[in-house]
Amino acid sequence: MRRWNGWGEETTVMALPAAGEAFLAERVGPGQRLADASLAQVLDTVPVSRLPAHPLVSVAAEERVRHARGQSLPDWLAMRSGEFGIFPDGVACPETAAQVRELLDWARTHDVVVIPYGGGTSVVGHINPPASARPVLTVSLERLNQLFEIDEDSLLATFGPGANGPQVESQLRAHGYTLGHFPQSWELSTLGGWVASRSSGQQSLRYGRIEQLFAGGTLETFAGPLVIPAFPASAAGPDLRELVLGSEGRFGILSEVKVRITRLAAQEHFYAVFLPDWNQAMQAVRQLVQARVSLSMLRLSGAVETQTQLVLAGQPRPMAWLEKYLALRGAGDGKCMLTFGVTGNRVQNAASLRQARKLLKGFGGVFTGRVLGRKWAEHRFGFPYLRHSLWSAGYVVDTLETATDWSNVDNLLQQVEASLREGLAAEGERVHVFTHLSHAYGEGSSLYTTYVFRPGASYAEALARWQRLKHAASLTIVGQRGTISHQHGVGRDHAAYLPVEKGALGMATLRALSAHFDPQQQLVPGVLIEQS
Amino acid sequence: MRRWNGWGEETTVMALPAAGEAFLAERVGPGQRLADASLAQVLDTVPVSRLPAHPLVSVAAEERVRHARGQSLPDWLAMRSGEFGIFPDGVACPETAAQVRELLDWARTHDVVVIPYGGGTSVVGHINPPASARPVLTVSLERLNQLFEIDEDSLLATFGPGANGPQVESQLRAHGYTLGHFPQSWELSTLGGWVASRSSGQQSLRYGRIEQLFAGGTLETFAGPLVIPAFPASAAGPDLRELVLGSEGRFGILSEVKVRITRLAAQEHFYAVFLPDWNQAMQAVRQLVQARVSLSMLRLSGAVETQTQLVLAGQPRPMAWLEKYLALRGAGDGKCMLTFGVTGNRVQNAASLRQARKLLKGFGGVFTGRVLGRKWAEHRFGFPYLRHSLWSAGYVVDTLETATDWSNVDNLLQQVEASLREGLAAEGERVHVFTHLSHAYGEGSSLYTTYVFRPGASYAEALARWQRLKHAASLTIVGQRGTISHQHGVGRDHAAYLPVEKGALGMATLRALSAHFDPQQQLVPGVLIEQS
Repeated sequence: MRRWNGWGEETTVMALPAAGEAFLAERVGPGQRLADASLAQVLDTVPVSRLPAHPLVSVAAEERVRHARGQSLPDWLAMRSGEFGIFPDGVACPETAAQVRELLDWARTHDVVVIPYGGGTSVVGHINPPASARPVLTVSLERLNQLFEIDEDSLLATFGPGANGPQVESQLRAHGYTLGHFPQSWELSTLGGWVASRSSGQQSLRYGRIEQLFAGGTLETFAGPLVIPAFPASAAGPDLRELVLGSEGRFGILSEVKVRITRLAAQEHFYAVFLPDWNQAMQAVRQLVQARVSLSMLRLSGAVETQTQLVLAGQPRPMAWLEKYLALRGAGDGKCMLTFGVTGNRVQNAASLRQARKLLKGFGGVFTGRVLGRKWAEHRFGFPYLRHSLWSAGYVVDTLETATDWSNVDNLLQQVEASLREGLAAEGERVHVFTHLSHAYGEGSSLYTTYVFRPGASYAEALARWQRLKHAASLTIVGQRGTISHQHGVGRDHAAYLPVEKGALGMATLRALSAHFDPQQQLVPGVLIEQS
Repeated sequence: MRRWNGWGEETTVMALPAAGEAFLAERVGPGQRLADASLAQVLDTVPVSRLPAHPLVSVAAEERVRHARGQSLPDWLAMRSGEFGIFPDGVACPETAAQVRELLDWARTHDVVVIPYGGGTSVVGHINPPASARPVLTVSLERLNQLFEIDEDSLLATFGPGANGPQVESQLRAHGYTLGHFPQSWELSTLGGWVASRSSGQQSLRYGRIEQLFAGGTLETFAGPLVIPAFPASAAGPDLRELVLGSEGRFGILSEVKVRITRLAAQEHFYAVFLPDWNQAMQAVRQLVQARVSLSMLRLSGAVETQTQLVLAGQPRPMAWLEKYLALRGAGDGKCMLTFGVTGNRVQNAASLRQARKLLKGFGGVFTGRVLGRKWAEHRFGFPYLRHSLWSAGYVVDTLETATDWSNVDNLLQQVEASLREGLAAEGERVHVFTHLSHAYGEGSSLYTTYVFRPGASYAEALARWQRLKHAASLTIVGQRGTISHQHGVGRDHAAYLPVEKGALGMATLRALSAHFDPQQQLVPGVLIEQS
């Protein structure tokens, strides 16, 4: 069963090796454990629903608990402490597009606030019910998860929006296809959620972001259905798909999603290369993408992340040997690990690998083959489970991300890391911070930063620490020409920072669109656009 | 000097070979010549301007004539007959973004209709002044044509919106870069026009459409400036670039455009392959793109276009030998010519060429090397000049285009061609029709259809014939799951057909955006969104 107060299946555990705990203790101090609430305690706090009865709506307390929070750090603290604060008044799980429509019409009649819910994996507060005088209905799309149609000539597949990663891939793989969209949340997050939040997968270098994969579909809105036909390309006015992408539920609920698919590749391999220092490594990655070498995935860990990963691998003996070997070849202290993938037919892959190795060698890269690449692939969706082990050991972990142009990548990275590393200095706390680049483009790159700190003596203290860190980093990002999000979206946690990049008229445009599609402001108020 | 009543430089001529004229006479009958008006005659018809005086605004008659019409067939007939109908009341050529702003503010004060004007190359009526009780000002961006900045790390260049194709490329090439955007109108059309109309270049397979190249910039609107910063990618809400792309001047005037550029490739070659029949050829092209073979350009001519091109090449002897050779190798009657390009470094190009040849051979393709490819490259911007030669010979030529999914490409092609071929049957006229696919995607392809017919006895008859053909083909396109435009845009000529693909709510959304950015409806009323 899925955890009610954390990530993934209850039976799945990603252990923290002993060396990892020692490593952290040395860097931020010994862990500080806080007591968890039980589900029974939380169920007792669920208030009576304010919703009128509807055959599709459940007002059962556990349903409401399980749909009240996502996976942001404030969500985590709320779930572990048991102080949820706000619950939806009910949860509906429509099984057809017609039922989605019916629920919207009913919500209109009864002045109900509506929260579209995919996999509940948002890390920025997309699905949290707002404090509202109106009753709140969460519409979970989990039962709208089928593959309805494949057009094999056109490589198009039509899905229900609630299909999660495994449901998308298993239904496509049965026919020999893949969507190729693998965000870290893939086990739980859904196609509709990916579209609504402009998700990016680990292999976007080959398959594109969800923007490139989303071909059309239907958005049910309070102003009626927005039906977007699929075309390979069109010059017929502004592209309405782009209003749905990133709309984060503010404009409507997706009831059908068409995506571009790819035939399963004959071959796929991941490799690891170590580069002697950050500057060499960053230049190498930039040149790889700008030379259009046909790779399917790139992830460049900074020196601290590289070191942290080698410790967390939990195999001290072979890792020590690896480090000796690397040092001998010129990649010692300060070395950075680059993982990259090739996906395609044998001939294409061999050519890409040859080009990549040659270019990386020019930057002092030490090629180590597939072992670490395979390890990355095995654990590619495992990171979110690590929050549990770190929490049990008395540490809080969170991540944040941005993207910027190559000429600004290093500056932004240094400033974001500094804002976090020194973010709790006033209270004498240290923060362990590390970063990787995981989505590289000709123009620039994403930056994905992980930070680990101690919660302090109480949940309130932990939340306050997180708020200070998050605010400092977010201000740094938008103040230094980064986007407030490359892949997590805006939600509630980033909404205050969005106006810096959208500008006054840009924000007014989003508000005008929201008023157009949702005149009574019933759809996730406060998400994307802050309430004035 | 640029022609006032047709395409391009007065000194550039693309002659119609004698065999070409005979070929057409056989297919649609002997040419019917109509008399052209002189510039002096047209200047006499320009009315007094209704605009108040402004230092940036010229009300000179010739300026107004030269900015009154684009390059659609109705424009052509208006220019040749001298019956322009409507002229702008004045033309302004701002030299700075501040002057663009100033002109908008002035237009607001004096209730002036504003037409943003790039290269004047629209083939669907984007820049035609509407009949209006308000005075009409055309804002030509031709003097805002500089390269302002290059960020070589991030491969970003910032231009004035009025830079035309040669200005863009020459300024970039001086630094070793290319934009790689080569629409057929490249000699005259502008960066701002490409963005506003969602243009696609001949090498979009490598460089992407203008959607992929447009990284950000500033749109001056009646609601203030919309400033869009450049990011390599972002999940921070709907992408506002996508509202500018395809806005066709309805939302504002671009005053600065940032684009993604590419280092000049070491090598570029174009090749021609002949395939035995249309079905084999179409499957081959589909598989080439779906297998992600790294080509920079693809153009597949149908059998009639192939035959027409070989005649128009004007070299009967070598072409006859070529046809004999092809027939011997299995590509006889019904053969289809595929031109494709490879662009990159030598190693990449060799690998791509090898893959392409192997795949094409499997479909019976006969490879003929670079001669015809080089010919294509030499004449790649020449086609618009051919309208002059055909007109002199007594024929009218026009083109139209669409895109659809692969499962529908053949159906749509057959139906569009039939609607044109039989479009004048009621009056006993034949139409010569042929098609190529020039932008292939994993999902589908563009279809570009050329049609030649006789004008009849008068300009009025010629226009009526065109209207019948255009209407029949447009209804067929939107009725058969094609987009009303893959690359030309909507303008005035396609506006009536747009609601079929955008839907009622989609059109209402475009109207809401137009009202948001332009409350008094001063920007090109009637373009994109029909006036109700």
